[in-house]
Amino acid sequence: MTPGDAGRLADQLGFVLEVDRLKSVIRRGYVADGSRRENTAEHSWTLALMALVLAEHAAEPVDVAAVVRMVVIHDLVEVDAGDTYVYDDAGQASKDAREQAAADRLYGLLPADQGAELQALWDEFEHGTSREARFARSVDRFAGFLLNHASGGRAWRENDVTADRVHAVNQAIDDGSPALWAEVQRRLADALDRGWLEPGPAAPAPDQT
Amino acid sequence: MTPGDAGRLADQLGFVLEVDRLKSVIRRGYVADGSRRENTAEHSWTLALMALVLAEHAAEPVDVAAVVRMVVIHDLVEVDAGDTYVYDDAGQASKDAREQAAADRLYGLLPADQGAELQALWDEFEHGTSREARFARSVDRFAGFLLNHASGGRAWRENDVTADRVHAVNQAIDDGSPALWAEVQRRLADALDRGWLEPGPAAPAPDQT
Repeated sequence: MTPGDAGRLADQLGFVLEVDRLKSVIRRGYVADGSRRENTAEHSWTLALMALVLAEHAAEPVDVAAVVRMVVIHDLVEVDAGDTYVYDDAGQASKDAREQAAADRLYGLLPADQGAELQALWDEFEHGTSREARFARSVDRFAGFLLNHASGGRAWRENDVTADRVHAVNQAIDDGSPALWAEVQRRLADALDRGWLEPGPAAPAPDQT
Repeated sequence: MTPGDAGRLADQLGFVLEVDRLKSVIRRGYVADGSRRENTAEHSWTLALMALVLAEHAAEPVDVAAVVRMVVIHDLVEVDAGDTYVYDDAGQASKDAREQAAADRLYGLLPADQGAELQALWDEFEHGTSREARFARSVDRFAGFLLNHASGGRAWRENDVTADRVHAVNQAIDDGSPALWAEVQRRLADALDRGWLEPGPAAPAPDQT
């Protein structure tokens, strides 16, 4: 190992230890058994696993490895910016600026070539500029929905989220995976049947597909 | 989506929700800031991130995507078999049989082709039969060490683990990454200097490399 390599390794380990704090960023949603709220590190693992297992349901054929790489790093910015709840409109409005500053700082901890590469991957995810990014974004949203359903809708009720909002927010899943969007609609109808959330003021019935 | 596809998706989501229990498998080691013990889901995410960031330090050139896929699933068996502490000799002796039974059950939840493919990937990791598997195994062991060091050696002291044991158990890291093994020796010497663990009865000094 040359001295340059040792410097690279030191920077890389500093980065890894810094983003370990993602394990302390607590999301609104619960783990599947409802026992506690999920943190962003384990959420990111769930997405990686889902990308591996569900890739055949992407709208277009995807390079699975690229999707996995993307979801592993997609939420690193939350180390600084925190988790922004998908149903929090005010938070969503300021999210981009907060996350951009976080990305600049965090990816800046890495050797320059590597930081630029990973930040470009994050940009690709954020802007959905490839079929892999579009599928990754669909999996991200689907995972939140699936665990909310699995845990009996607890996070929806705690945050006064109604079915019409769930429908509106998750419709974007269709872009990367019509099959997963169809699954959302089936489970959303089921959640309404079970009384796990209220229809809401706008209350469009889920599409009967 | 054909009826066959719907059946596949149902099985795949059943699998994803079953292995979500990995978030409740608590390891002996702590997260980097020492605030609490780590669970296996977030540990798996750390390995995926490390594989992305540290691949250049592999002993031989590796297909990074293959390493990442492997570490995402490498500990799924702990859903049934629990975590076996790397310094628990009795546990290590029964580990293979417990984990094989777990693998047969868990991968059996997936569509047969996919279950066979992922179980083969797990076998590859377990037996270190490729350069990717050897690097993945090194990263797995290194991650445990790195977080123990970062959190001030708390898990070592709680489990009466001495420096000679740390040295012996982590020496295998050299197989997949001499650079990471050199880093272990630097940090182990530092931990001894700080009094974070005892030298131990056998007490070989860390190699001065």
